[in-house]
Amino acid sequence: MNSMILHISCPDQQGIVAKFTGMLFENKANILSLEQHVEPDENLFFMRIHADLSNLSNTENQLKSDLQALQIQLDAKIQLHNYEKKQNVALMVTKESTPLYDLLIQQKSGELSCNIPLIISNHNHLKSIANQFEVPFHHISITPETKLDQEKRINQLFENHKIDLIILARYMQILSPSLVEKYSGQIINIHHGFLPAFKGKMPYHQAWERGVKIIGATAHYVTEELDDGPIIEQDVISVNHQHSVSEMIQAGRNIERSVLTNSVNAHLEHRIILHGKRTIIFHS
Amino acid sequence: MNSMILHISCPDQQGIVAKFTGMLFENKANILSLEQHVEPDENLFFMRIHADLSNLSNTENQLKSDLQALQIQLDAKIQLHNYEKKQNVALMVTKESTPLYDLLIQQKSGELSCNIPLIISNHNHLKSIANQFEVPFHHISITPETKLDQEKRINQLFENHKIDLIILARYMQILSPSLVEKYSGQIINIHHGFLPAFKGKMPYHQAWERGVKIIGATAHYVTEELDDGPIIEQDVISVNHQHSVSEMIQAGRNIERSVLTNSVNAHLEHRIILHGKRTIIFHS
Amino acid sequence: MNSMILHISCPDQQGIVAKFTGMLFENKANILSLEQHVEPDENLFFMRIHADLSNLSNTENQLKSDLQALQIQLDAKIQLHNYEKKQNVALMVTKESTPLYDLLIQQKSGELSCNIPLIISNHNHLKSIANQFEVPFHHISITPETKLDQEKRINQLFENHKIDLIILARYMQILSPSLVEKYSGQIINIHHGFLPAFKGKMPYHQAWERGVKIIGATAHYVTEELDDGPIIEQDVISVNHQHSVSEMIQAGRNIERSVLTNSVNAHLEHRIILHGKRTIIFHS
Amino acid sequence: MNSMILHISCPDQQGIVAKFTGMLFENKANILSLEQHVEPDENLFFMRIHADLSNLSNTENQLKSDLQALQIQLDAKIQLHNYEKKQNVALMVTKESTPLYDLLIQQKSGELSCNIPLIISNHNHLKSIANQFEVPFHHISITPETKLDQEKRINQLFENHKIDLIILARYMQILSPSLVEKYSGQIINIHHGFLPAFKGKMPYHQAWERGVKIIGATAHYVTEELDDGPIIEQDVISVNHQHSVSEMIQAGRNIERSVLTNSVNAHLEHRIILHGKRTIIFHS
Repeated sequence: MNSMILHISCPDQQGIVAKFTGMLFENKANILSLEQHVEPDENLFFMRIHADLSNLSNTENQLKSDLQALQIQLDAKIQLHNYEKKQNVALMVTKESTPLYDLLIQQKSGELSCNIPLIISNHNHLKSIANQFEVPFHHISITPETKLDQEKRINQLFENHKIDLIILARYMQILSPSLVEKYSGQIINIHHGFLPAFKGKMPYHQAWERGVKIIGATAHYVTEELDDGPIIEQDVISVNHQHSVSEMIQAGRNIERSVLTNSVNAHLEHRIILHGKRTIIFHS
Repeated sequence: MNSMILHISCPDQQGIVAKFTGMLFENKANILSLEQHVEPDENLFFMRIHADLSNLSNTENQLKSDLQALQIQLDAKIQLHNYEKKQNVALMVTKESTPLYDLLIQQKSGELSCNIPLIISNHNHLKSIANQFEVPFHHISITPETKLDQEKRINQLFENHKIDLIILARYMQILSPSLVEKYSGQIINIHHGFLPAFKGKMPYHQAWERGVKIIGATAHYVTEELDDGPIIEQDVISVNHQHSVSEMIQAGRNIERSVLTNSVNAHLEHRIILHGKRTIIFHS
Repeated sequence: MNSMILHISCPDQQGIVAKFTGMLFENKANILSLEQHVEPDENLFFMRIHADLSNLSNTENQLKSDLQALQIQLDAKIQLHNYEKKQNVALMVTKESTPLYDLLIQQKSGELSCNIPLIISNHNHLKSIANQFEVPFHHISITPETKLDQEKRINQLFENHKIDLIILARYMQILSPSLVEKYSGQIINIHHGFLPAFKGKMPYHQAWERGVKIIGATAHYVTEELDDGPIIEQDVISVNHQHSVSEMIQAGRNIERSVLTNSVNAHLEHRIILHGKRTIIFHS
Repeated sequence: MNSMILHISCPDQQGIVAKFTGMLFENKANILSLEQHVEPDENLFFMRIHADLSNLSNTENQLKSDLQALQIQLDAKIQLHNYEKKQNVALMVTKESTPLYDLLIQQKSGELSCNIPLIISNHNHLKSIANQFEVPFHHISITPETKLDQEKRINQLFENHKIDLIILARYMQILSPSLVEKYSGQIINIHHGFLPAFKGKMPYHQAWERGVKIIGATAHYVTEELDDGPIIEQDVISVNHQHSVSEMIQAGRNIERSVLTNSVNAHLEHRIILHGKRTIIFHS
């Protein structure tokens, strides 16, 4: 199949759905699914369309030109994604093995549709897992002194491998603002706490101290401010007074991994539209 | 506002969304929300559209005539619902007070948008609650001998009050097939078990005997076969070996009521399309 | 039955369970349930025993004297509660009806075993519900100027009715430190947010702004610092980009009420031991 | 440390806790945790004690002899387990890789404290995963004709490796009654459905047909009747009309693995007492 994902956002107004679907129909692009969302307070309209382009009546260029005409008419932002193209994903890790295992297993089994050309780590700890799955492992240690130079190496690796998405799978370093800005909306972090509570280091220790009865995990896009980017998915699990910190950590692992892999899946399927600090996540 | 809900189901084919949204746009009906769903194995397309008719360019009759043209062209089934019209809801109860309280409180607070002109019960047990909320209470006791006659009285009450929806809020009698058939798709039952497990009487006793670790509640449309109709919503709660049957009953009450009121809400907002034994439940 | 609840906390050491259970056995007090918990980092031992005193071989005074001997020997804190005595509970509310309805319904049905001799509110808004359930309603409005005098009236009402437990069922005033201190460990608040995130006012608005994907409710003991007391129970519900603030509020109501009534139940059954900012909550 | 787990069940009567804890205290066995449970309808008492034997005042034989005396006095069933001894676990699999990966990863990381000396499969499909983790893989194909002979081989492998626990991690063969009987209470199966609904083959297909809104997974001990043994743990996840069968399967994987590994953990830590069709699962 040759299908595309269309992300549209524009001021809410009459006829948006009719105009886009009418244009697609005229081009003989077959709509496989369509979801829309309105933010009434801001008068904003969002839509995701998945369309099959196999039997276009005209060229793809004609379709793009028709889209551009609508873009101008409706004052819209439009993004086009090739649904079939596998994205290149870089994994960044430190010592925690669970999310690394999970992403590698799911990629191998086909549940996660992407390429994983490299794993980057500031420690050597997980090298054997990378070997087990035959993915190149780059040990790039970071100290305050070497950080800038090492991030240049990291950036070079991203460029060499045409990386589309970076996953911080419990990577215990903070990326510098320039890298974050360059890959804005393309870096997903898993935080082992229920944001916005328990930001930063050792969230389970914080949760234990506070005596919470539920702990959580949060996948979010990385922005300059620590653990403050748009949330993609969260999940929680109940705990009680019997849970030590290390038992909380163990209980949390199950939710961390489903939260992370679901979020990565949503991103890879172009189901997420970023809107300020909020994410609009379409279902299908 | 003057808005309508449109339910459409038809064989999947190109241009369905474009045709309906284009027709609505031409009539200056403003689409407030649109959700579609495809069953690929059956090649069936389903759609719900919520449209504001306040500023129609033509008459509602013109719109209906245009709809009819599309219906024929696409071999579709179409249902039109007035979104603003409050539906008339009959509550049927026996002795369990929680769901009755809940429905009455939510209707009073406006969370449930409907009229409740009558409560019917085969016992007198909950009469005081009906009085508390000033809703007429009809005690219609049922024995095998009187069942047919009494159901005629019930049916008459339904007709007198132009009942649109019947809620079996732990009504411990089985309606006869003729009543079920007459109000097909208009009777919602709450079953205090996780269907299809534990059908019929005393589901919590069955669950305790089986030693399950999770108990559930299920809201479903009533069909001729007991506890076998299309499921609208389910929820569950964890239990353990310490729960006696009566503690299970108490734990289950919280999920029963959210399951029931959410289901009733989905029905009243015309968010449900029945498709054989399955329900398609739209979100917005 | 004539049964008591025993709360014991002491430095962890060998033989604690043996000594208490041996002493109870000698007095022919029948242990109905026993739960213990150790905090290993602090070397602290906690235990709750429910014992039937119907067939004591000696007097209750003898039992108490034997307890005191153990208390000294083990350097323990011991609390004795009469399990059968119904506690007197004061409800404090403002405008939100759901938790008030819930507590009154559950008390009426016997699910909540307590007396509710009075409802206090700073508004008149919920008076009709109090009337519906025939519970005296005290409208005590609060302004910055009148606060101290009005709290004296409130305190007087608490004393007159020998109040054991105060429930802030969405009471939108902050109690002054002297009242909080006087009823330390006897005031339960329901907060409609997932603490420690979203303290203070309008937590659902805060949650919407932050774009969280799960919202929560928290019942906790009230301490001097706002929304910072020991947490008793929390629950959560998933939301998505389609939820407006008011839809979050509605979704939250179901979890708020189960969280509150479960917490009140745990308190009334003497299943909670406070330990600093943490609560130890026994099951049976 | 040298610690033991004590499982006790006997008719409920006064002084049970006092007698056991007193005897342990006299032997200077230090109680690390104690949990008890009463089934009131059957007048049965259950208890699990975890005790440190490092500083016994007498020999372990003396302790066992004292236990035997109590066993006779209280008409009790008593089981003793060495808490530190690692159990030998056999994994049986077919084609589904997720639970196999999970168990191997958790065993390797130490979260699951056991030896895994062998994997048995009726297919060759997962051999590479066994190799990846360097666990011997035995391909023992089963046909109706070869079943009895092949099970003899399986049984021989179990005996050679002194297997304590057998995990059917999506093993798609039914064990014959003699093997089930021999390892009664020592075979755990993960069923990818919410038992007792959807027993047998293809439970997700059954669930889809029935239109359920929640799917589940169940870990249970294997008994002669298919999918009917005592349930250890269950978990669920919400689905809707958009989920195809294969999406249900994928959604179910996350709950299957946490259900299975939690159940195996509870078994390995001797936290489960079997009582007819029910399991009593202690927490600590």
